[in-house]
Amino acid sequence: MGVDRTRSYAILGTGAVGGFYGGLLARAGLDVHFLCRSDHEHVRREGLFVESKFGDFRVAPANAYADPRDLPAVDVAVVAIKSTENAALPFLLPPALGPGTIVLVLQNGLGVDDQAAAVVGAGRVLGGLCFLCSNKAGPGRIHHLDYGLVTLGEYTADGRPGGITPRLKELGADFALAGIPHQLVDDLRAARWHKLVWNVPFNGLSVVLDATTDEIMADPAARALAEELMREVAAGAGAVGKSISIDFVRRMLRDTERMIPYKTSMKLDYEQGRALELEAIFAAPLAAARAAGAELARMSALHAMLAFLDARRRRPPPFSTGSTARP
Amino acid sequence: MGVDRTRSYAILGTGAVGGFYGGLLARAGLDVHFLCRSDHEHVRREGLFVESKFGDFRVAPANAYADPRDLPAVDVAVVAIKSTENAALPFLLPPALGPGTIVLVLQNGLGVDDQAAAVVGAGRVLGGLCFLCSNKAGPGRIHHLDYGLVTLGEYTADGRPGGITPRLKELGADFALAGIPHQLVDDLRAARWHKLVWNVPFNGLSVVLDATTDEIMADPAARALAEELMREVAAGAGAVGKSISIDFVRRMLRDTERMIPYKTSMKLDYEQGRALELEAIFAAPLAAARAAGAELARMSALHAMLAFLDARRRRPPPFSTGSTARP
Repeated sequence: MGVDRTRSYAILGTGAVGGFYGGLLARAGLDVHFLCRSDHEHVRREGLFVESKFGDFRVAPANAYADPRDLPAVDVAVVAIKSTENAALPFLLPPALGPGTIVLVLQNGLGVDDQAAAVVGAGRVLGGLCFLCSNKAGPGRIHHLDYGLVTLGEYTADGRPGGITPRLKELGADFALAGIPHQLVDDLRAARWHKLVWNVPFNGLSVVLDATTDEIMADPAARALAEELMREVAAGAGAVGKSISIDFVRRMLRDTERMIPYKTSMKLDYEQGRALELEAIFAAPLAAARAAGAELARMSALHAMLAFLDARRRRPPPFSTGSTARP
Repeated sequence: MGVDRTRSYAILGTGAVGGFYGGLLARAGLDVHFLCRSDHEHVRREGLFVESKFGDFRVAPANAYADPRDLPAVDVAVVAIKSTENAALPFLLPPALGPGTIVLVLQNGLGVDDQAAAVVGAGRVLGGLCFLCSNKAGPGRIHHLDYGLVTLGEYTADGRPGGITPRLKELGADFALAGIPHQLVDDLRAARWHKLVWNVPFNGLSVVLDATTDEIMADPAARALAEELMREVAAGAGAVGKSISIDFVRRMLRDTERMIPYKTSMKLDYEQGRALELEAIFAAPLAAARAAGAELARMSALHAMLAFLDARRRRPPPFSTGSTARP
């Protein structure tokens, strides 16, 4: 591909994550195609509006699609749905694939790249971790509140460092062009474990304790538990060969103290009746650690509680009058 | 004391526990003195009414007191307040003591007998564990819903078996006379640990998950966590030399499955804004296990969550207009 050709992106899931990053890429002049849900008509008609701490902007016209089969083959297909919906990847990904298409999995947790790799082959997959505070505010409307750093790395099936490849650098160059804060890492799996050090305690405890990050940090018992959970995640990472230093744990605690009071994404999912990302953030890391001989007891207890709460909230009420499937 | 003399009891705390057992003892003709709170006038005037699965009855007249200093010296002083109020024992216990008075601590958890022993001396103390479903339904009014077994044993400062002593048998004889189901054990500390096997998971999870026992048992993740917590308690008991068999854990699970849907006492305390019995049921056993080299990680995580919830609920709202102490 020539250096002057406009690179093309498919954004699979135009929500808080895909809408924000896809919007920034489109604003920078890249050729972006948005797969939407209920708001595809709205986005096609009105474009995509991003209210952002980085400055508000509108992408109009926007290439919006309702059906993945209508997508063109692109250079980069970005998986920006919730990991709880990854069962849809076999339907979402194939239409966007050309011979050289890479797939960027913008999801937290473990095992999510593997799910994409099972559909498109390991050789096409890169992963990204977003540290982002953003909401879908309405049809075609994204509200970016804070942060935005994306960590990008090459996926490898065995979890070993994939290195800083030319295509990873090319991806980074697009993000730089779009003004997206980002970093390239040679060890995606290690980056995923590092991110879990924060996500496990604060996503988990925010739901079980119905609490914001500042409430957790202000209570001695909850703060101590958050730190113990962080240390357990670090121990799990160590067991699978991705060492995390105690300094990193301490830094995460300090950073959390300095954060504005914050509702985690799992807390928002819970409040809004969406499925919790328990597989990627809890079950897969616990299984990986266990397979390596590390039993993460507190994290496992927290996972069980979240599984109970998630199942109860999604269970139909006992005398529901809603429609049911025929036997 | 002669065999024919009526034995005397002081019931320190005429609530769900003290009102029920004290009422049964009084009905059987024993000389019972009830220390009450706000309802002492009512009880003095109207007596004590017990609506019970064992048959409703009224104790009238009832010897009711508002001030512990008005109590006579008795044969048996029964500690039936919540363990969260044990700081009051130095005020409650001394007036009821004669030369031969024994003190029966009817509270769950660990360390509660020690708190009584610190006031009256170890030689006077016996302990009791109640498996009881009972509520205070109103002034002078107790509602006994189910169960009622009391396990009675001799306290020893070092936790070794105290044996089945004559005074323990005498206590059992009073309970038999009153129709109170009971058992005498030679190892009170071991009995306390056995009781924790049930109390830790179900009291704790019922509050954190806002769930009844049947909801916990019906959910695979929560049930598995309850079993893991039971095994941790058994491991803690083993570490301090009070072995608990895996058969006992299995039996507790089976019994819980067969129970009627049940709100635990800690859940009721939480809903009604009362302090949770975290010291006796969580902190003291965790500390004892830790001192013996056993780290009970899941139980410790559950304790931290309960401590957070308990503190938050009792924290005054940020702009409270309520009265405050002068500096």
